[in-house]
Amino acid sequence: MQFSRDQSETLIEIMKWRRDVRHFSSTPIPEDVMTRLGEAMELSPSVGNSRPWRVLRIRDEDRRARVSELFERCNKEAAASYTGEARQEYLKLKLAGLREAPEHLAFFTETEPQEGRGLGRQTMPETLFYSTVMAMHTLWLAARAENIGLGWVSILEPGELAGILDAEDSWRFTGYLCLGYPTFTDAEPLLHRKQWQSNKQSVWATR
Amino acid sequence: MQFSRDQSETLIEIMKWRRDVRHFSSTPIPEDVMTRLGEAMELSPSVGNSRPWRVLRIRDEDRRARVSELFERCNKEAAASYTGEARQEYLKLKLAGLREAPEHLAFFTETEPQEGRGLGRQTMPETLFYSTVMAMHTLWLAARAENIGLGWVSILEPGELAGILDAEDSWRFTGYLCLGYPTFTDAEPLLHRKQWQSNKQSVWATR
Repeated sequence: MQFSRDQSETLIEIMKWRRDVRHFSSTPIPEDVMTRLGEAMELSPSVGNSRPWRVLRIRDEDRRARVSELFERCNKEAAASYTGEARQEYLKLKLAGLREAPEHLAFFTETEPQEGRGLGRQTMPETLFYSTVMAMHTLWLAARAENIGLGWVSILEPGELAGILDAEDSWRFTGYLCLGYPTFTDAEPLLHRKQWQSNKQSVWATR
Repeated sequence: MQFSRDQSETLIEIMKWRRDVRHFSSTPIPEDVMTRLGEAMELSPSVGNSRPWRVLRIRDEDRRARVSELFERCNKEAAASYTGEARQEYLKLKLAGLREAPEHLAFFTETEPQEGRGLGRQTMPETLFYSTVMAMHTLWLAARAENIGLGWVSILEPGELAGILDAEDSWRFTGYLCLGYPTFTDAEPLLHRKQWQSNKQSVWATR
């Protein structure tokens, strides 16, 4: 299988227009689109082919409200760690769209999967979590290509979140995703545009 | 920006044909292709826009040989943890292409970045590592679209690897990537084809 220059440029365009979305319309995502996103996620890499991601789709209004409240509390605590102007800047940022987003997906990692038979993770057990992260990133890109916005919420206390969602004991919370149609699209990261943190070019060093 | 059905299908094709490659030709990757891969990686998401990935391109023959030897030792230790038929099966798997791959990239995570000003990682500091993982996955997909194979080597002891490569004290080893032209392409994962671990469909539960 050989990909063309046009195809690789399409991938780059999708990556350029992927954003962490916090401004959602409440329009539902059609079920066939959600199915396609799930199918795309199955193509993700994982250590030893262990596929340790465990996905909960949160539909219960009470649980969704409790997750939003947990975010609001954790975000208030985070704001309190800044002082002066930085705190004012922080408080102006919209860091999640939990109340508006039509879809909430909670990602956990199974820490003791049978699948994969331990391959590839004896010196680096954290590769299980890394596998879940790549599945989330796969979903993110697939969502963008379907013109759906996705926002990753990490301002949540993992143990409390697992409790709200009745997660299995062997699962560990890895990240919470909001999905929905974005109210605008942008090629520039929000934190860059809002002058919280500019895009800083990486350096590759040689050894 | 709206993507078309054709464009989203191109993304899915690239994902379908992405593999963990361990069979490389020694043909060098042209420098302009390496530059494009680096540019693609800049489009990766990161917590608080912190971009904590630190990339070392390993060109020194002695260091490359020491990394290969470290892998071989760690892989032998991993094999010893299996018994009977599983050990025989494990020993038959080719789990890295370090000796043949023309490019070696070591990825570390800066654990105390100034960039991002701590945003998004107070309850989940591991999101710094997750950001590096998404940069590696971005590179993986971009490489596949350029018809270049990439293999992720995790069978390495992190502290010893950091020593071989003279990594900074505040960096933590996250993963080692081999890149090169693959000697074959496949839409089926090697561990599935070799019957080590079949592709098991994920289940999304509802809460």
